[in-house]
Amino acid sequence: MQQPRRYAILGTGALGGFYGARLCRAGGDVHFLLHSDFAHVRRHGLVVDSKDGDFVLPSVHAYGDVRDMPRCDVAVVALKATHNHLLPSLLPPVLADGGVVLLMQNGLGGEEEAARAAPGHAVVAGLCFLCSTKVGPGHIRHTDYGTVRFAESTLDGTAAGITESMRSIGQDFAEAGIDVDVLADLVLARWQKLVWNIPMSGLSVVLNADTRALMTDTHARALVEDIMREVVAGARACGRAIDDGFVQKMLAMTLAMAPYRASMKVDFDDHRPMEVEAIHGNPLRAAEQAGARMPLVATLYRQLKFLDARNRTG
Amino acid sequence: MQQPRRYAILGTGALGGFYGARLCRAGGDVHFLLHSDFAHVRRHGLVVDSKDGDFVLPSVHAYGDVRDMPRCDVAVVALKATHNHLLPSLLPPVLADGGVVLLMQNGLGGEEEAARAAPGHAVVAGLCFLCSTKVGPGHIRHTDYGTVRFAESTLDGTAAGITESMRSIGQDFAEAGIDVDVLADLVLARWQKLVWNIPMSGLSVVLNADTRALMTDTHARALVEDIMREVVAGARACGRAIDDGFVQKMLAMTLAMAPYRASMKVDFDDHRPMEVEAIHGNPLRAAEQAGARMPLVATLYRQLKFLDARNRTG
Repeated sequence: MQQPRRYAILGTGALGGFYGARLCRAGGDVHFLLHSDFAHVRRHGLVVDSKDGDFVLPSVHAYGDVRDMPRCDVAVVALKATHNHLLPSLLPPVLADGGVVLLMQNGLGGEEEAARAAPGHAVVAGLCFLCSTKVGPGHIRHTDYGTVRFAESTLDGTAAGITESMRSIGQDFAEAGIDVDVLADLVLARWQKLVWNIPMSGLSVVLNADTRALMTDTHARALVEDIMREVVAGARACGRAIDDGFVQKMLAMTLAMAPYRASMKVDFDDHRPMEVEAIHGNPLRAAEQAGARMPLVATLYRQLKFLDARNRTG
Repeated sequence: MQQPRRYAILGTGALGGFYGARLCRAGGDVHFLLHSDFAHVRRHGLVVDSKDGDFVLPSVHAYGDVRDMPRCDVAVVALKATHNHLLPSLLPPVLADGGVVLLMQNGLGGEEEAARAAPGHAVVAGLCFLCSTKVGPGHIRHTDYGTVRFAESTLDGTAAGITESMRSIGQDFAEAGIDVDVLADLVLARWQKLVWNIPMSGLSVVLNADTRALMTDTHARALVEDIMREVVAGARACGRAIDDGFVQKMLAMTLAMAPYRASMKVDFDDHRPMEVEAIHGNPLRAAEQAGARMPLVATLYRQLKFLDARNRTG
């Protein structure tokens, strides 16, 4: 019988903590890198309050330094994209020969950063549709959704197809009770996610509003829709066709969901750096390089850059 | 010797109170319509703290109802544009035969509303470059500038040239020590003012920032400049050429001025309705009707409409 794949969770927060704990509970060999919660989690483990059932892991493999960790088959990057400058020091020590990077982040550009930091290793993206929050040290609250969509990154941005790496990682997640999907084209999947994320994350911060407030105001909703259409046009310029019905589906889905505070808004409210470059800046530049202008997204980007700078300096 | 022109000041706030008090001090026959400050001003008059010299008018002609006022040669509309629905009840009772409406408001569309409310009367616009605030009942603080640029409105939007009405009113203001200018083309003057007002008023509210903060942040400043260029293009579509140097002049002027809270921001902070339709909505629609799209202004307009609605409902 084969050894189970060994996982390193780089960043044990609302997202990494949730998926890592689920893999662990299912019998996975999971190693958690922590920063501020290290001492607490080493002593008390992890607590997950989840709509799918609460559970406690009283004892987990917890580390405060990546150099203490064993080499792993899968290094899960569950840091915010604003911390990707740390990848060159985090990834090489923790990756086994043939180990795979699983990047669970928002926006565009993270795969390229991971590939540069871990040359020769495959980079699989895990696009997460998850509502969870860290409510205390080692304490995660999972309120909704949870699906992970896996897609593999290629150096030239073409579709990788369904690869063995994503299949086997997807299998581990599925066995942990996570709803999974495997996708042939990462770039398409990223742009589809941006159709929602660019307007909803951005406007939630600029207008200090949750998803419900934005969707029930005539003007805000019209702005959301126009921004979504602009992102679809940006995707098209980058060679990814997203059909018209997708925007309507996203609008209906958002209107139907419980009022939600996007993660960018949570970061802003907590005075943490926002993932503006990953979610707004990189798509904007990619579309512009492909010949598409996105003036509404550019406006939002500049507003967010202003707010982000002020939010962190005082 | 001719009788002095009789003035009605409809709206004795930061603006109407300032100019009315200056006309009054210079010996003008000035009648003030007040709302919340009526009882106070009738007893105590007006107090003006001004960079050009403080003064007190212990007794003024104060009215709480327009029907108590004498008929006047000039009816100065110094209300916010958000109150223009009151013009049909305010203007007819106070205008003498041949009386002129002097509209001292921001944005586009006010002249048309005044003309509809007072058919047969000339409508002159007074574009004010004034920093003043009402700091208490009948108490106005004038901190900077003060110039009024007069231009006459025509029904078809063509340039009226320099008319006798604006000359004589301008003369009264000049004699009151106000810096005045007379302009041949009202629509051009309005669009020139909008080049500054649309980005600075709008962004000051959306980004909760004063002029200095917007001008010293790279991203916000770039956004200000792009919005200014879009307004210039909108003006061009409406047949008004504003040259490229004008945008640079506005940027340099704004950077040089003391940090300033635009009047739209003051209204927002005080939970009063904002002049969004006059400053953003009407120019947007005018440009669109003339075939120009202004996507950045449209974005700002929708953001402001959202914020305005929420600001007033709770």
